[in-house]
Amino acid sequence: MYIPTFDDVAQAHERIKPYIHRTPVLTSRYFDDLTGAQLFFKCENFQKAGAFKARGASNAVFGLADALAAKGVATHSSGNHGLSLSYAGGRRGIPVTVVMPRTAPEAKKAAVRGYGGRVVECEPSTTSREAVFAEVVAESGADFVHPYNDARVIAGQATCSKEMVEDIGDLDAVIAPIGGGGMISGSCLTLSEILPKTKIYAAEPLNADDACRSFKAGHIIADDAPETVADGLKVPLKELTWHFVSNHVTDVLLATEDEIIEAMYLTWQRMKIVIEPSSAVPLATILKNRKLFEGKRVGVILTGGNVDLKKLPWM
Amino acid sequence: MYIPTFDDVAQAHERIKPYIHRTPVLTSRYFDDLTGAQLFFKCENFQKAGAFKARGASNAVFGLADALAAKGVATHSSGNHGLSLSYAGGRRGIPVTVVMPRTAPEAKKAAVRGYGGRVVECEPSTTSREAVFAEVVAESGADFVHPYNDARVIAGQATCSKEMVEDIGDLDAVIAPIGGGGMISGSCLTLSEILPKTKIYAAEPLNADDACRSFKAGHIIADDAPETVADGLKVPLKELTWHFVSNHVTDVLLATEDEIIEAMYLTWQRMKIVIEPSSAVPLATILKNRKLFEGKRVGVILTGGNVDLKKLPWM
Repeated sequence: MYIPTFDDVAQAHERIKPYIHRTPVLTSRYFDDLTGAQLFFKCENFQKAGAFKARGASNAVFGLADALAAKGVATHSSGNHGLSLSYAGGRRGIPVTVVMPRTAPEAKKAAVRGYGGRVVECEPSTTSREAVFAEVVAESGADFVHPYNDARVIAGQATCSKEMVEDIGDLDAVIAPIGGGGMISGSCLTLSEILPKTKIYAAEPLNADDACRSFKAGHIIADDAPETVADGLKVPLKELTWHFVSNHVTDVLLATEDEIIEAMYLTWQRMKIVIEPSSAVPLATILKNRKLFEGKRVGVILTGGNVDLKKLPWM
Repeated sequence: MYIPTFDDVAQAHERIKPYIHRTPVLTSRYFDDLTGAQLFFKCENFQKAGAFKARGASNAVFGLADALAAKGVATHSSGNHGLSLSYAGGRRGIPVTVVMPRTAPEAKKAAVRGYGGRVVECEPSTTSREAVFAEVVAESGADFVHPYNDARVIAGQATCSKEMVEDIGDLDAVIAPIGGGGMISGSCLTLSEILPKTKIYAAEPLNADDACRSFKAGHIIADDAPETVADGLKVPLKELTWHFVSNHVTDVLLATEDEIIEAMYLTWQRMKIVIEPSSAVPLATILKNRKLFEGKRVGVILTGGNVDLKKLPWM
């Protein structure tokens, strides 16, 4: 298992700069008053393809040697990673295949195709997904880009915290949502190198608290299909992300579904930005752990803004 | 009738700087591809109190001599101007009275009170509003700050285009929504001075096309209570705004309700920002008048982001 280093992050940043946005960091007087902290919101909802995943996907795609790249890349993800890989592959002009359950929303399939990706459908089971995916790779020779358990992907996600620190300087804490742990791992990788005293918090839905239980147990616990409005955060940790979580995370904080929806609603209402439910989990945990953050400079990563505007969780 | 000058704008800008945001200008590859133009979105939805109206209100409030200011300010507006005047008055620590129909949504009354403003209710008729408002002014000696037919307010709104030009340079055209004409007048005031070749377009709902008909007729036409989703744009032009519209506007472009809602939806979906229906009218007219804007650098003023998130027009 290769553990990416900060050199990989610096290289990733140079490599992906032409293909990603240097997203802005927004502040909010309202939320500072409400929390007693000084919050810096890193807006990856404004990122290409609508989420931070464009960073890792672009690093994987543009890091491939030409001969390998020509065979294309593939992944199984009906969420932001599939979309981002399609975006990055489209920018490089190589084939991208995304294996998705045939039951996934048509809008998500259309979005992948909109960026030039090819959707291959499987049955909605792990067995079918793995079989179909193996077939795709065997046929095409495509390079598998895992959504998070991949050193190139983590090095790419790590450029997010790097930009934030470059733009706003020292931070007492950084908080990001945790699903498979790609963004948190990237944040650990960057911050342990350039701001080693900064505390790193992972924010997780109570309904999908496998990372929290893993953190407490000292080994990976994976749940089967948890249900949460924060649909980007249902997947379990894997070896590489567990390495970073177990070594660098200060704590994993939890929020209920209602708290997540309320934080999401408040963010839309007061900051006038569209974020997806997963992005609201950190603010939800800050609001219920006021003492932990009061008086502190806190970086909050808003991970994405891909949401079905016709089906909002507070309706 | 005093016509504000660019000197007034420069003074207004200095005066209000501590109380307003210098809002960002965003771009969108998606909308550039869709329109063939280069669009620069000036994001007044991120402005204090959620709309550009904070500029004019702050200029009026902070321009008052102490003795006058002590008596407070008053207006009749159930929309963004009432909110913004409450915000500005609150920052200066003077009384603000907003006369609103008792039938106005409770959320709007609560928002005014949230900024420290006092709500005085009237019946939902012009007669009652004027009678109640006259009483408020007679009792308190408060200074009347009209939502748009006021030189101080127009000079304040004019700082929006000033910032945009300072930040992004030359523009072939600027487009903004038109209701009473405060923002358009401010844009005319600034641009006719600093970028006199720039074309100025006003964008209006077809359902409330009084400014368009006025523009064509050569005199003010006022409609009685038009119905449109763009609820900030129902009010008619007045002498001062008519002066600017009739002298400096290139054309008034119209959009249907469906076109406005579609442009609003697309803006939320692709730019991940919350804008109110009125703010979407310019983009709606650009999309249907492609040839007018193709190949041009166009400033698009997104006027505000105050919207009921529980009642979206596409639901």
